[in-house]
Amino acid sequence: MNNILDIIKKKSLGEELTKAELDYAVMGFVNGEIPDYQMSSLLMAICLKGMTDKEVIDLTDIMLHSGEVLELGFDSVDKHSTGGVGDKTTIVLAPLIASLGVKIAKMSGRALGHTGGTIDKLEAISGFKTSISLEKLKNQVEDIGVAIVGQMGNLCPADKKLYALRDVTGTVASIPLIASSIMSKKLASGASKIVIDLKVGSGALMTNMEDAKELARLMVKIGQLNGKETICVLTNMDEPLGNAIGNALEVIESINTLKGNGPDDLNDLVINLGALMLSLEKEIPTEEAIEYVENALKTGAGYEKLEEMVKYQGGDIQNIPVSARKLDIKSPKAGYIKHIDALKIGELARRLGAGRLTKDDVIDPTVGFILHKKVGDKVEANENLITVYFNEKNLSLSDILDCFEFSDSEIEKPELIYEIIGKETI
Amino acid sequence: MNNILDIIKKKSLGEELTKAELDYAVMGFVNGEIPDYQMSSLLMAICLKGMTDKEVIDLTDIMLHSGEVLELGFDSVDKHSTGGVGDKTTIVLAPLIASLGVKIAKMSGRALGHTGGTIDKLEAISGFKTSISLEKLKNQVEDIGVAIVGQMGNLCPADKKLYALRDVTGTVASIPLIASSIMSKKLASGASKIVIDLKVGSGALMTNMEDAKELARLMVKIGQLNGKETICVLTNMDEPLGNAIGNALEVIESINTLKGNGPDDLNDLVINLGALMLSLEKEIPTEEAIEYVENALKTGAGYEKLEEMVKYQGGDIQNIPVSARKLDIKSPKAGYIKHIDALKIGELARRLGAGRLTKDDVIDPTVGFILHKKVGDKVEANENLITVYFNEKNLSLSDILDCFEFSDSEIEKPELIYEIIGKETI
Repeated sequence: MNNILDIIKKKSLGEELTKAELDYAVMGFVNGEIPDYQMSSLLMAICLKGMTDKEVIDLTDIMLHSGEVLELGFDSVDKHSTGGVGDKTTIVLAPLIASLGVKIAKMSGRALGHTGGTIDKLEAISGFKTSISLEKLKNQVEDIGVAIVGQMGNLCPADKKLYALRDVTGTVASIPLIASSIMSKKLASGASKIVIDLKVGSGALMTNMEDAKELARLMVKIGQLNGKETICVLTNMDEPLGNAIGNALEVIESINTLKGNGPDDLNDLVINLGALMLSLEKEIPTEEAIEYVENALKTGAGYEKLEEMVKYQGGDIQNIPVSARKLDIKSPKAGYIKHIDALKIGELARRLGAGRLTKDDVIDPTVGFILHKKVGDKVEANENLITVYFNEKNLSLSDILDCFEFSDSEIEKPELIYEIIGKETI
Repeated sequence: MNNILDIIKKKSLGEELTKAELDYAVMGFVNGEIPDYQMSSLLMAICLKGMTDKEVIDLTDIMLHSGEVLELGFDSVDKHSTGGVGDKTTIVLAPLIASLGVKIAKMSGRALGHTGGTIDKLEAISGFKTSISLEKLKNQVEDIGVAIVGQMGNLCPADKKLYALRDVTGTVASIPLIASSIMSKKLASGASKIVIDLKVGSGALMTNMEDAKELARLMVKIGQLNGKETICVLTNMDEPLGNAIGNALEVIESINTLKGNGPDDLNDLVINLGALMLSLEKEIPTEEAIEYVENALKTGAGYEKLEEMVKYQGGDIQNIPVSARKLDIKSPKAGYIKHIDALKIGELARRLGAGRLTKDDVIDPTVGFILHKKVGDKVEANENLITVYFNEKNLSLSDILDCFEFSDSEIEKPELIYEIIGKETI
């Protein structure tokens, strides 16, 4: 006999819950039999007392099977990012890898808080449709090998309902809960292999390496136990990725990257993640995969695939409006860039209209920032530091300059890729 | 600027909340601005991360001032029990100490779960009224020195609402929350001095000495800081107190005790707690106070005061109906009584109808148990062990015998009073 109070007490004492107990609590909550005030008490106990691997695996399985589990009918690789500022990697990677014969049926999310969302970014392309049926998604991937669409189907309703409660009860920051939330959605969306870009740093969900490694270990373990090869790449999110922040600006930067003119960090990340995806799917060594990916960037094959995808989904790649109102911000001093606060920039971009505070906020795709300097770069006094593309709302100069730290002495370029977890299994 | 999510996060990191933050959270919850699911998350964080003394004192003050704070207009001593099985101490103590010139305006509670309530017990006396106005309470205490009534006024509504949520979210077992809940109510009910009988053992809220001592320390500190001398007596609640369990049976045992024929443990407890109350109020040494209390038991002065009080409150002390249906349970073996499970007996009494599972259950005052043996007593096979007074519902023999443990070798009589905390201050 299960009783929610007994389950809460057991977890608050730090004991391991059985799968039956987790199922009783989670599905009872989803069905409305267990009220939110009891679930939030249990969630806080989980946050503070943790979960064993077995509990995390059981919880993932319960959430995975709380709704539809998609069957794509073909092998595909999914690439997931835990979210950062300026992270347009998916828009570059999906067509790039598809151009090398790997099927990509990518479901992406929308912006929330200081992080952007791939779907919002793609909608900056005039006419681009992100809401299509599963049948159409399958046809498109069979036809051209790639599609990037919004969430579809009734995937993991238990995760949706739990996440909404966690969001308003201070129970988001739990590695077991984050791992099961991400992995239940990945497992439900039908890909056969999973590459996760786990962002670490001031602009990311994970702010320290220790937590990030634990989250990576858990996600890889969950994936493997569910028969899906999973790799987790820990990457830097202390400064924004690339130079562009804001929806249309990021799509344009993605196009430039696919044409071989990407910023160094984005370019590096795309090559490394792409090579991992390719080697995973084609079962070839990573070194060989790197060559293929670099070649696809050089020849423009990836860009052609993006053009094809945009056209297939109704978009006009020539028509990506950017606000005409812009302002160049000059550096107040000479020196080296020591730090660019990704979290702050992300929040400023949201205030410009590039993001959402609540799900109902409407996005302005034309606004954002272009960084002219990145960490480690030398800068002269009065040299262009950052350009603001604004519309109705603007920002104060001090808000923007607060995102930058300067140094008189030289600063090393930060590492981009910290560690790859799960690779030993391929 | 307060924000409930920031407050929850702060507490979940184990940090100290300011009084303004506690006030924002608690009063926001009371006013309906903060939903129960956020408060329950905060409560679980408090349970698992604890509270500093300052936080407990602040929380008590917030709950105390969330409603009426009664002014009695005279000095009086309040005696509080944290609840146990067979605990009729208040019914003996209040008139006994009043007969020695100490004013007692006692507000008591009702039964819930396996513990009884003084008000339900007194209502077993035909005609006894427990619901009167504050004005009438004051008049009665001025006239005869003693009254025992139900809760009155809108005392500590914040505590009521918080307790109701704690009860259904697994967040009852927190020493800081228990201390502030008890003390806010005691401070609001107007007594100038407070003696707390803190029950420790299997039948009590506190099951181990370490927790009980911490709770006692906190309550004494809160009382002192609020200018009310507070003493906390840690007493045994492993076996029921006295021999009678059940409303009418306990009133009859109280009367017998006041007539000098009480069971040893109840008698001892009454003398010790009574002497503490007397020495606190009259500022005399405890040894001297013990003599006065023993004398009041010997002369029957305490019983006369009870008669006076019962008459004043409309009751007929000659008319305390007990069920005519009773069954003597014999001991299945010879030996010594090793343990009598107070929790189990309390739950069985509730099942007979002596208590409540929910606030709406109606109590049968005529049912209960009389123990013929207590821990340490020698028992012969087939000797009377316990008598069940039942009505509509009866119990199985094995349910009842399960409450007892026997030993072949002699068992020492358990200690009754473990420790007195706060006495060094008088």
